[in-house]
Amino acid sequence: MSKPILHSYFRSSTSYRLRIALNLKGVEATYKAHHLRHGEQRADAYLALNPQGLVPSLELEDGTVLTQSMAIIEYLDETIPEPPLLPQGAVRRAQARAMAQMIACEIHPVNNLRVLTYLKTGFGADDAAVANWFRHWVATTFEPLESLLAARQEKTRFCFGDTPGLADICLVAQVANNRRFDVDMTPYPVISAINEACMELEVFQKAAPAAQPDAE
Amino acid sequence: MSKPILHSYFRSSTSYRLRIALNLKGVEATYKAHHLRHGEQRADAYLALNPQGLVPSLELEDGTVLTQSMAIIEYLDETIPEPPLLPQGAVRRAQARAMAQMIACEIHPVNNLRVLTYLKTGFGADDAAVANWFRHWVATTFEPLESLLAARQEKTRFCFGDTPGLADICLVAQVANNRRFDVDMTPYPVISAINEACMELEVFQKAAPAAQPDAE
Repeated sequence: MSKPILHSYFRSSTSYRLRIALNLKGVEATYKAHHLRHGEQRADAYLALNPQGLVPSLELEDGTVLTQSMAIIEYLDETIPEPPLLPQGAVRRAQARAMAQMIACEIHPVNNLRVLTYLKTGFGADDAAVANWFRHWVATTFEPLESLLAARQEKTRFCFGDTPGLADICLVAQVANNRRFDVDMTPYPVISAINEACMELEVFQKAAPAAQPDAE
Repeated sequence: MSKPILHSYFRSSTSYRLRIALNLKGVEATYKAHHLRHGEQRADAYLALNPQGLVPSLELEDGTVLTQSMAIIEYLDETIPEPPLLPQGAVRRAQARAMAQMIACEIHPVNNLRVLTYLKTGFGADDAAVANWFRHWVATTFEPLESLLAARQEKTRFCFGDTPGLADICLVAQVANNRRFDVDMTPYPVISAINEACMELEVFQKAAPAAQPDAE
């Protein structure tokens, strides 16, 4: 039987999100690596699948190509309802999506490889200036994220309840990304505890960058 | 009867998205302006509602505060099903969300006010360099977006079908934002046509920055 193809790069945190979601849903996918630092995602064959030239993409069995990690995760949640990646109730679902989007729309986009490269080539930023930029945008959003998580009425093991979901997926991928720039996690005890709770689970461990076939 | 409160800034393109969605769903909200250039979104009273200090927020009748424009729009679509803002079918819904996220996760985050301000203060970028940055990220995503829209099997009036939805909402808000940096729209005839089709509708016109009480 054919399987979907996961177009990924081990170090890409958006690919990491999708790998976690696939594992949580029990979907087996064929792993196809695209080395971002070698520009492999800009090859014609891949651009024909995903004209943005970004990873991840999920190529379904019928050839349909889905793009954008957050949209693909919602697709998985709609087509494979168990276990749910969003909580019950419209308000809580909105809160979970908002928490995920704090990372997906505020931190990751300004800190991805192509943006950091522009800072160097366009503004002559050195490694220290790039690291400051990265850490600035993490802190700008992790501070309110930590407050929101600390203020939850129910101090659940994961962001929303006793099973991991969309917000946890984004949180874990961002925390891993933070290590590349030595982000001090001391100010974020709740985020750190949720990250640790996730990383105790095999589905998260198997999705980690170091566990991928293209890991260096 | 009480109404929800829309915390907004006329020029904010994420606020613009939410204003369109509220209008499409027929939700009347009390408009509360926060002047971003005067830092009003950082006032303690607003931070108590939204610790990120960003607009928009939607304060529901019971005091619940929803944040992140994309999460709020999904909330509106779940709680007020008609007219739907996402197409039928999981694959098409994923494609619509992906198209919206191309703008919401790739263009807007790197081009919002606080990021452009950092370029000036942190890297000494002048107005021309900031404009180049803005236009670069628009082009990087509008080129594949135009290709995807041009390659649609059905050349519908809006991104997905004959009624506007999530992708159109993001598209219109981004096209308006582009005007601030004189983005040349000539390379994007399909995006332009969809934008025009939307702007013929009163619900879009009433959501436009210039139609807001805090417009300057």
